[in-house]
Amino acid sequence: MSMVDIINKKRLGRELSDHDLEEAFLGYDRGEIPDYQMSSLLMAICMNGMTEEEIFTLTDIFINSGDQLDLSHVHGVTVDKHSTGGVGDKTTLIVASIAASLGVKVPKMSGRGLGHTGGTIDKLESIPGFRIDLSEEEFIHQLNTVGFAIISQTAHLAPLDKKIYALRDVTGTVESIPLIATSIMSKKIAAGAEKIVLDVKVGNGALLKTQEEAIEISRLMKKIGEKYNREVETMITYMDIPLGTCIGNALEILEVMKILSNEENNYLVALSKALAAKMVQLGLGISIEEASSRVEESITSGRAYQKFLEMVDAQGGDLSKLRVSEHTVDIISNKKGHIIGMDAYKFGKLSLDLGGGRKTKEDKIDPGVGIMLKKKIGDDVEIGDVLCTLYVKEEGYKVEEDITSYYTFQ
Amino acid sequence: MSMVDIINKKRLGRELSDHDLEEAFLGYDRGEIPDYQMSSLLMAICMNGMTEEEIFTLTDIFINSGDQLDLSHVHGVTVDKHSTGGVGDKTTLIVASIAASLGVKVPKMSGRGLGHTGGTIDKLESIPGFRIDLSEEEFIHQLNTVGFAIISQTAHLAPLDKKIYALRDVTGTVESIPLIATSIMSKKIAAGAEKIVLDVKVGNGALLKTQEEAIEISRLMKKIGEKYNREVETMITYMDIPLGTCIGNALEILEVMKILSNEENNYLVALSKALAAKMVQLGLGISIEEASSRVEESITSGRAYQKFLEMVDAQGGDLSKLRVSEHTVDIISNKKGHIIGMDAYKFGKLSLDLGGGRKTKEDKIDPGVGIMLKKKIGDDVEIGDVLCTLYVKEEGYKVEEDITSYYTFQ
Repeated sequence: MSMVDIINKKRLGRELSDHDLEEAFLGYDRGEIPDYQMSSLLMAICMNGMTEEEIFTLTDIFINSGDQLDLSHVHGVTVDKHSTGGVGDKTTLIVASIAASLGVKVPKMSGRGLGHTGGTIDKLESIPGFRIDLSEEEFIHQLNTVGFAIISQTAHLAPLDKKIYALRDVTGTVESIPLIATSIMSKKIAAGAEKIVLDVKVGNGALLKTQEEAIEISRLMKKIGEKYNREVETMITYMDIPLGTCIGNALEILEVMKILSNEENNYLVALSKALAAKMVQLGLGISIEEASSRVEESITSGRAYQKFLEMVDAQGGDLSKLRVSEHTVDIISNKKGHIIGMDAYKFGKLSLDLGGGRKTKEDKIDPGVGIMLKKKIGDDVEIGDVLCTLYVKEEGYKVEEDITSYYTFQ
Repeated sequence: MSMVDIINKKRLGRELSDHDLEEAFLGYDRGEIPDYQMSSLLMAICMNGMTEEEIFTLTDIFINSGDQLDLSHVHGVTVDKHSTGGVGDKTTLIVASIAASLGVKVPKMSGRGLGHTGGTIDKLESIPGFRIDLSEEEFIHQLNTVGFAIISQTAHLAPLDKKIYALRDVTGTVESIPLIATSIMSKKIAAGAEKIVLDVKVGNGALLKTQEEAIEISRLMKKIGEKYNREVETMITYMDIPLGTCIGNALEILEVMKILSNEENNYLVALSKALAAKMVQLGLGISIEEASSRVEESITSGRAYQKFLEMVDAQGGDLSKLRVSEHTVDIISNKKGHIIGMDAYKFGKLSLDLGGGRKTKEDKIDPGVGIMLKKKIGDDVEIGDVLCTLYVKEEGYKVEEDITSYYTFQ
């Protein structure tokens, strides 16, 4: 069947056979199918969905397009964690530190940020000296000694997914439940961990907008996991507000350290503890109650914090040299009221505009800029109160937008 | 708004503003929007449709992407005719000859065939010497002297439509009612005729599969015409069977001459007379009854046939040199029964395989090959009867398919 016939078949809502999917996706990988045909097929998939059979086949195609990491030399149970991303999301660093401090092996591959969402790798690179390019041997060695190692997504795992994702990103075909599930699971399976905890984010600041979508993608990802003998646990969490109080790379590292030192208590902390408990439950094979109490203990005892320091040290990072920008601008509220909402997307965009993110893949990030939120949902605000503090590149930064409008008041 | 935002807007079913459409389509025309983004937008349009406002705007963008033919120096009322295409469709040559013989000016731009459907220009080029590249002056001069002139679609009329059509052709985005209407009407309006008769084909051998689609596209094209002060009449006709008895370029020219000489009487003849009557009604401002009787008279008197000869002669064609292939293969029926159906698409593909059409734009056509149908719908067939005769390139041509299966028997 020609590519045009395959596209028409999907446009008309018929199921693509294994052979159709291979022709299209392997042909694209070999450079025989041009971008303009693939993007048209991806849009038809976005709009007509995929059957489970199609989803399994595509996941398999993505996995087999590259290598699979062999973690058999890691002693202990490996548990990976993935979040579908969002503004101010630094849970990975918190939960991995906790879980590793309790004996779970956490092999983590993370991505860079693009657009209004940040990436864990960018956050770590704000620590001078931090190496994200460990070799496979170094990675496995660190898992056996420290228990937690984090590297940049390599080009060798599910490389076809990477190619397809780059095309989806510029063709309005990102928001597709089957394509998101396929993309996440092919990377997670290729990354080799035995068990996987997935944090599925819903809301204004997230890829998935409704609870129904989150339930559907959770169900799909568990099913894909079963096919590959991977135990998958999901947690649906809300992203209508930025997570925690900081947005920006170095600022978020500081926030992680505060949380691991038991100095904070907010929604991000509760979420991180819940995710960590799931990882510990899976990794140690204990009840969720037992896992939760160990998580609490690892924070109060300082073991989780120590584990984070150990990981940073093992990867060459020097936390004493971490810097946030010296230039700050306080944003003053021009309204009075009770905050009932915050636009996570707009805060993410603001951080991007300050220089904390990339608009194109080639952009350089300024690790020291960002936003520290002083007022959040539930707070009462008077006119003249400081809503948030911007950490800006240079003195004299002009705020052009009405930041107060990012908040919803009652 | 960025192209990705525009694509997402359409994917989510929201109306694109004039500005959005200009950004996308003019940006594409300037080479700033890549094919892969345009094909993704076209697929979203295919699947979510377009509002009338969007259709008007896109038509306008297409028209303004090139020149408009100025027919103000043609004496008399100009009436154009367009068919949405199909297998064995030679109505253009028949109806234009009839209408011009009755005093209507028929400025015709036609296309070449691609895939399983033929093109009028290819049919005319089977006449040795025939020039399809008249200059604008020659074209207008011939309209004033002969009343009927036919040229190849120039690159200057609605060139953006041409570019978009080429992309649609390879991205599974051809079957979209708004896009078909926009494409046809932008070319017709740019081609300059005051009045337009549209033959909208429905059925297995046509772009439109259902009566409802045909009614909808007719309504849309009339509305677009109104916007530009063009009187538009449509006729919905059926394409479930090949039109007439011949498929193939030279064979179809011979069939046209037979019909104009009043030697045939079948569905194609009736359809051609009905379309010609619509053109005469519009062009001369007379009743449809009066127009129909003049059409009959033009055929029986031989005036229509003379007009066809005049047109061919004026454009340099020498009909005495028209040749069909000497090598023929009779296809013998392996079934007995009453024919109740014929697969027009398969006959079109067969003619293409014989060498009568193009699979890619670069292919050369063999004008002498084709198919002459001996049995059609309504005929009774015995095993051993000749169903059709293939005119093939060279002796010893092997028929690999079971042609009897192209027919449905009762």
